[in-house]
Amino acid sequence: LTQNLYDNPDFFEGYSKFERSICGLDGAPEWASLRAMLGDLSGSRAVDLGCGYGWFCRWARDQEAVSVLGIDISELMLARARELTIGAGIDYLLGDLESLDLPEASFDIAYSSLALHYVERLPALIETIYDSLVPGGRFIFSVEHPLLTAPSTPEWIVDPNGNKAWPVDSYLHEGSRTTEWITSGVVKQHRTFTTYLNVLIKQGFTVQHVEEWGPTDEQVKQRPSLAEERHRPSFLLISARR
Amino acid sequence: LTQNLYDNPDFFEGYSKFERSICGLDGAPEWASLRAMLGDLSGSRAVDLGCGYGWFCRWARDQEAVSVLGIDISELMLARARELTIGAGIDYLLGDLESLDLPEASFDIAYSSLALHYVERLPALIETIYDSLVPGGRFIFSVEHPLLTAPSTPEWIVDPNGNKAWPVDSYLHEGSRTTEWITSGVVKQHRTFTTYLNVLIKQGFTVQHVEEWGPTDEQVKQRPSLAEERHRPSFLLISARR
Repeated sequence: LTQNLYDNPDFFEGYSKFERSICGLDGAPEWASLRAMLGDLSGSRAVDLGCGYGWFCRWARDQEAVSVLGIDISELMLARARELTIGAGIDYLLGDLESLDLPEASFDIAYSSLALHYVERLPALIETIYDSLVPGGRFIFSVEHPLLTAPSTPEWIVDPNGNKAWPVDSYLHEGSRTTEWITSGVVKQHRTFTTYLNVLIKQGFTVQHVEEWGPTDEQVKQRPSLAEERHRPSFLLISARR
Repeated sequence: LTQNLYDNPDFFEGYSKFERSICGLDGAPEWASLRAMLGDLSGSRAVDLGCGYGWFCRWARDQEAVSVLGIDISELMLARARELTIGAGIDYLLGDLESLDLPEASFDIAYSSLALHYVERLPALIETIYDSLVPGGRFIFSVEHPLLTAPSTPEWIVDPNGNKAWPVDSYLHEGSRTTEWITSGVVKQHRTFTTYLNVLIKQGFTVQHVEEWGPTDEQVKQRPSLAEERHRPSFLLISARR
């Protein structure tokens, strides 16, 4: 059964306080990179897998996408999306990425932000996404970086001089990791960098660009805590073409 | 100037004692994976960049490659290769991967084992390799894994219960790392996983398969120290097609 954290009111309340919740796309430091990877959306049909509040859906419409379908497992999220980001050409749909049905060859762009590391049956989802794209269609997504998800104890080690190191273990042991994030017992799926790539390639995608996101100097100046991302990136961004 | 460790007699002597030096390809635990990625070589023209003793060159000829060119920066290495692994269709050439010239569209397979993490000017070398391959030609290589090359202090942290963790820092800070390996002052180039992929893609290669190498159960049984590779892989293997 899929863990649906976001319909837990406490979790939802906690999540709603993040900058990326309050400020939309620009509250996410990795957004500029994703935006560059997305390129021109005008005239495209887009789908957002794990759409949350629908910030991407509204942005895509502002970029002259002709239609955007936002899918999320959380009723609370979709209710908020329908308040915040509804508009002509935007549809929201309740759906579970573990067992998703999508119409075939119907989208030019599939997008997903920080959702796929919750999905257990990744190859099945990648197949669904591939089939839902037109030939030449693109799939652009972010996940928590494998370095972030791997460790059994995901906490910085700080030496007496204040130098930080991230303690990697179990990197090749793929599978569930139970961590604390807003609440306890949050289950994420750890996968290697390799697995993300090979699942796409095996499905028929061509990998076009990858990014292990790190902050700009300007971002570090505005939010010094982002500097640690340079030691161990939190986000893996991938662009692939059908 | 390229650091040429292998022409230092002490380094060469130290290197010659490794299992992969004594036993050839089968002495390298990651060889089975590379071999699977190489597939059928019969009838192909191959080049090995950083050929060392020439074990790959001889193996490729045994696989009915029609010709194999082994290139290495070390005179000592090539002298040993000419003793150990010479044969009809095998040529050895002194060459520096930093400033390599190769004939255009002349090879079906380019191979490189654990050499590219010494190369500073990677995009130039990748362009040379790309141009040297025929359309459809393949480039298969291994490098030290970015997790291995990143840390400022590349030493396992062991807790009181014997649990190991690999202290990652500076992952996004690409560039030289000076470490001790056989001798002190060995300079390697740290690159992110992303950079290896994007340099290939930007050049026009299609990434076909990647592997972060880990040992089989059988290998761990025979050499228990390999188990730590599962916590932090040492080798990144990539297959790409022109």
